[in-house]
Amino acid sequence: MTPRVRIVGTGLIGTSLGIALSRAGYAVVLSDPSPTAAALARDLGAGSLAAQGDPAPDLVVVAAPPDVAGQVVAHELTQWPTAVVTDVASVKVAVLDHVRALGGDLARYVGSHPMAGRERSGAVAARGDLFDGRAWVVVPGPESSPSAVESVRAMAAAAGGTVSTMSPTDHDAAVAAVSHVPQLASSLVAGRLRDLSDPAVALSGQGIRDVTRVAASDPQLWTQILAGNATAVRDVLAHVHTELGEVISALDSLAEGDGVGAREVLARIVAQGNAGHARIPGKHGAAPTAYAVVTVLVPDEPGELARLLHDVGDAGVNLEDLHLEHGLGQPFGLAEVSVLPAVAERLGDELVARGWRLHG
Amino acid sequence: MTPRVRIVGTGLIGTSLGIALSRAGYAVVLSDPSPTAAALARDLGAGSLAAQGDPAPDLVVVAAPPDVAGQVVAHELTQWPTAVVTDVASVKVAVLDHVRALGGDLARYVGSHPMAGRERSGAVAARGDLFDGRAWVVVPGPESSPSAVESVRAMAAAAGGTVSTMSPTDHDAAVAAVSHVPQLASSLVAGRLRDLSDPAVALSGQGIRDVTRVAASDPQLWTQILAGNATAVRDVLAHVHTELGEVISALDSLAEGDGVGAREVLARIVAQGNAGHARIPGKHGAAPTAYAVVTVLVPDEPGELARLLHDVGDAGVNLEDLHLEHGLGQPFGLAEVSVLPAVAERLGDELVARGWRLHG
Repeated sequence: MTPRVRIVGTGLIGTSLGIALSRAGYAVVLSDPSPTAAALARDLGAGSLAAQGDPAPDLVVVAAPPDVAGQVVAHELTQWPTAVVTDVASVKVAVLDHVRALGGDLARYVGSHPMAGRERSGAVAARGDLFDGRAWVVVPGPESSPSAVESVRAMAAAAGGTVSTMSPTDHDAAVAAVSHVPQLASSLVAGRLRDLSDPAVALSGQGIRDVTRVAASDPQLWTQILAGNATAVRDVLAHVHTELGEVISALDSLAEGDGVGAREVLARIVAQGNAGHARIPGKHGAAPTAYAVVTVLVPDEPGELARLLHDVGDAGVNLEDLHLEHGLGQPFGLAEVSVLPAVAERLGDELVARGWRLHG
Repeated sequence: MTPRVRIVGTGLIGTSLGIALSRAGYAVVLSDPSPTAAALARDLGAGSLAAQGDPAPDLVVVAAPPDVAGQVVAHELTQWPTAVVTDVASVKVAVLDHVRALGGDLARYVGSHPMAGRERSGAVAARGDLFDGRAWVVVPGPESSPSAVESVRAMAAAAGGTVSTMSPTDHDAAVAAVSHVPQLASSLVAGRLRDLSDPAVALSGQGIRDVTRVAASDPQLWTQILAGNATAVRDVLAHVHTELGEVISALDSLAEGDGVGAREVLARIVAQGNAGHARIPGKHGAAPTAYAVVTVLVPDEPGELARLLHDVGDAGVNLEDLHLEHGLGQPFGLAEVSVLPAVAERLGDELVARGWRLHG
């Protein structure tokens, strides 16, 4: 039996999902408040337009903006009394609360959150492989029926996602810590650069470039996301605020007081960061991020970086990560090649033997 | 005339500097409290050991740990009454204050700060090219003589650094904002991951990986750095603390109050981050970081990334930056290729024509 899926909202996520599920053999119908947007999604291969007399869907995916997701879910639950309904908003407690408040049938509602593709928007940016290999969290509420959960899991897997399951509260606490709080920290640090002189900001190295990379994100979208997860984000930020206050007191004491105990505070905060950082999963999902870095001078000419990576592969070493660091107006860059610690020394030797200059 | 340089302290920086300056034709003598460390630096080509009856140096470079730099500078100023003395500590007001308090001849003291190589330490990690293309800030005090400043600038340039000049206060405020505060923010965000469940931390994406990358830094070293720049770091953090408090109040209001005005606060903080982020200089030192990103699916096999970069070069497109994003246990990764916006579309087309799959 071909599962029948109705997708409500044909932006980036909805259209990409339509393309992916159509390829996976689902029968997809598309609905959007804007007929033009729906027609564009159809033309991109995301499915057919919803029409009067369509058979009832087995599954409805609400891909509406987060601030209206709950309302649309409740409407779809009423309109299709046998269908399972899910949504793709990046926060989950608020949507469930909204559906409950509107009297939706919670046995047939299962939230979900595909962690993919927020930088661009609109159907034009849609890709059938948007979800390939990305985490897709399925988030049942306490009333969700097991069969409803299973049909959402199956859909997420068919779309290419790497599926896991969490409760709404756990999900929102997790994304607060691994996504929403890092975004705010990045924005706050970047905001401090506004008033610096040009020579001062010219001292920016790789550290601040990494820390502030996500600070380029869209304010409107992030206001919606943060507002939708206000409680969980606030709880994590409250800890950060307290610890930041301790750091400021310690620095105050060093600058103007006796400095007793201040260094312990600073060392503890940095050490706690070490411990937290070590928990982030590595490339293959299990190992911690403890790679060795081989830094190589790369002439700033077309093809040089490719030649370096070719030589790394030729040495039989698997590249785990790569960062580029740029000199200030220099005719070369630094490539930081992350590899398993056991092979770092050999890789360095092999690269030197092939004429590369190592650095630092 | 060969300039005579005396380097005091033969750790990573001192030894690397000795190698670089020896290559540049300086006559380098080495001194270290540990005779073994000094001898190792000599064996690595950093210069000859200081000995009784050496001619007086023209320039002394104090490459001692930051917390003793001022004391050693004052000692060298006394011991060599005609030499210019500089140091390489990453904070500058505290060192100058210390030298002044000890009665050092401030006309002959010029601070400096080569921004290079803090991840590893010791002479064994030394490289003659450690400073190549890295910012090297020369930091005269109000009393520094013009000829003293010039000799330190010439030495920094001879070592390979990209030389600029700033006042001590401006320097310390700049590194507080572009280095010390980002480090603390990264540590605080990473510290929050300690108590997450494994499934929660498994949702970590590229954003938190970037934000927390520097959180792996050494607590002892950073305690010294932060303590040495306590005033400037505190001043920047005070702004961050205030704004973080505003964010928490806004989230509180959204979670439990009427939420009036809260979204404005969130949008403003993210927008300020946009503005600050846009000020970070791009690869060639002038343009802001406003590149377009072409995301490509890369099979996780040796040589595939090299082949991609070869194809980028072959398309005549200059790679401005590259980030790798890894799927969760998937047999491929995502390469985010940053290029000038004007060539992004053409690059995408060329890569597709060569069989690559674009993403997102």
